[in-house]
Amino acid sequence: MIIGPADIEAAASRIEGRVRVTPVMTLEEGAWGLSGRLVLKLECLQHTGSFKPRGAFNRILSSSAPPAGVIAASGGNHGAAVAYAARSLGRHAEIFVPESTPPLKVERLRRYGARVSLIGASYPEALTASMARAAETGALVVHAYDQPEVAAGQGTVARELEHQTPDLDTLLVAVGGGGLIAGIAAWFQGRVHVVGVEPEGAPTLARAMEAGRPVDVPVTGVAVDSLGAHRAGALAFAIAQRYVDRVVLVTDDAILAAQRTLWEDVRVAAEPGGATALAALLSGQYRPAPEERVGVLVCGANLDPRRLN
Amino acid sequence: MIIGPADIEAAASRIEGRVRVTPVMTLEEGAWGLSGRLVLKLECLQHTGSFKPRGAFNRILSSSAPPAGVIAASGGNHGAAVAYAARSLGRHAEIFVPESTPPLKVERLRRYGARVSLIGASYPEALTASMARAAETGALVVHAYDQPEVAAGQGTVARELEHQTPDLDTLLVAVGGGGLIAGIAAWFQGRVHVVGVEPEGAPTLARAMEAGRPVDVPVTGVAVDSLGAHRAGALAFAIAQRYVDRVVLVTDDAILAAQRTLWEDVRVAAEPGGATALAALLSGQYRPAPEERVGVLVCGANLDPRRLN
Repeated sequence: MIIGPADIEAAASRIEGRVRVTPVMTLEEGAWGLSGRLVLKLECLQHTGSFKPRGAFNRILSSSAPPAGVIAASGGNHGAAVAYAARSLGRHAEIFVPESTPPLKVERLRRYGARVSLIGASYPEALTASMARAAETGALVVHAYDQPEVAAGQGTVARELEHQTPDLDTLLVAVGGGGLIAGIAAWFQGRVHVVGVEPEGAPTLARAMEAGRPVDVPVTGVAVDSLGAHRAGALAFAIAQRYVDRVVLVTDDAILAAQRTLWEDVRVAAEPGGATALAALLSGQYRPAPEERVGVLVCGANLDPRRLN
Repeated sequence: MIIGPADIEAAASRIEGRVRVTPVMTLEEGAWGLSGRLVLKLECLQHTGSFKPRGAFNRILSSSAPPAGVIAASGGNHGAAVAYAARSLGRHAEIFVPESTPPLKVERLRRYGARVSLIGASYPEALTASMARAAETGALVVHAYDQPEVAAGQGTVARELEHQTPDLDTLLVAVGGGGLIAGIAAWFQGRVHVVGVEPEGAPTLARAMEAGRPVDVPVTGVAVDSLGAHRAGALAFAIAQRYVDRVVLVTDDAILAAQRTLWEDVRVAAEPGGATALAALLSGQYRPAPEERVGVLVCGANLDPRRLN
């Protein structure tokens, strides 16, 4: 099932008031020596520090409320968003995370009221365990990216941005499993050029585009905690094939440089995944035309602030 | 000389394109258990990480350009803003700072292209030395707060905010020497209630209001690096007497709690002075009425990010 603008409109109505309208900031002409006009969409100021609550709320609110609550697998931004959304809606949340998850992240999930199950050596094992558990209890599964309701929820950020900045030519979006770019591309349907940006160490969508289908990709690098999906979602791939302009790759050094620039020049704290879209511009992997109005989605801020030093 | 809206309009035209239009963010109803509707004005995302470039640009652009350039005394936000503005305008800047200024802050001024003179044990000595030097060289003095062009420049943040959020009832503003609140109060002239917020350890404007004139106040506390003026400016006091609704005091603990809340719930990095206005709300020192639309000026983000941990 491919989603479209109507699904995103419906999602926006469903989640209104539950998620923040995050601000945009237009930078001065010639900022960072770039041609084009830059607009930062500061989605990193969203509840839980990433765009993920949009999809989590939409998925949960699209379903009836099973007594067993909701279930997800993720020690990162998705897990936090599901825990947060479930608590806001008075639902029980169980989050499966690999045993290697840092205690701080586990603590954070518990602060949002979730029951945390540490299981398996890696994410796929935690995911498998969460699915088995859901089959047992009847809990609602909230997938990190490959569900229409999740992608439609993430797409509300594009609808919001278009309202705030109607004259955008291009939007740069970081890609992990592809839920975010799927929702965004499904909203714009080519009206705004959507460019995916991936770390060289996690080229999930780039490889899928080359292969003509999602393929497994080994992932590594500084943004792996948020962009480290091993395989593009089927839904994301189908939408990206149709509506994503292109996918560019950036190095870890470029990501870290973009993170530093956001902090030093704009005082925006972004995690590596949140700075990845900007890295494409600053490293020249995406070169805007003169006067091109380029949006950059700063999509996450879950980092240890000591890293900004 | 008291400034008024016409001065601020003129300042806005003068500095347009030199300073950023900083974003506002409306929080969800009931955020942090408060009545009222909260709007954060994220002026901490301004160039150099504080509102100070507004006044610095306006002061420099209001004068002819003496060959000796501009001069200021401040190792903090004001110094950085003057150095930044001077460099953008192709002027030479000399910044006087006390010998106790941390090397990192000196380095930052130099990165902005300023010549830095380390002189005296404390700020007043550095200020005196800067004035003597200006008298010698003919350089343009940019005062940290007590100059009409500086206050009018800072007032452009109120003009901008009113354009972004026309239905504001009240605006909470942190106070150091008073240049910022002076410009803001001069813009609104009672149309919006302007409430000053000071640390208990640096109650400069509060004591001036009690005494009926600016008085020397010993200052201390976590926000002393940005709000630690020993005496309210004469200009600020004159405007505040007429147009500031009231001044409330907050504890250092309340300031640090507000700083933590901004980071944990909104991923906004604020220095203690930048979180002081919010502290008045969170600590109950300012209690909005139901439905009251309250703006909070987050005015600075120059901090060691390790402090956010």
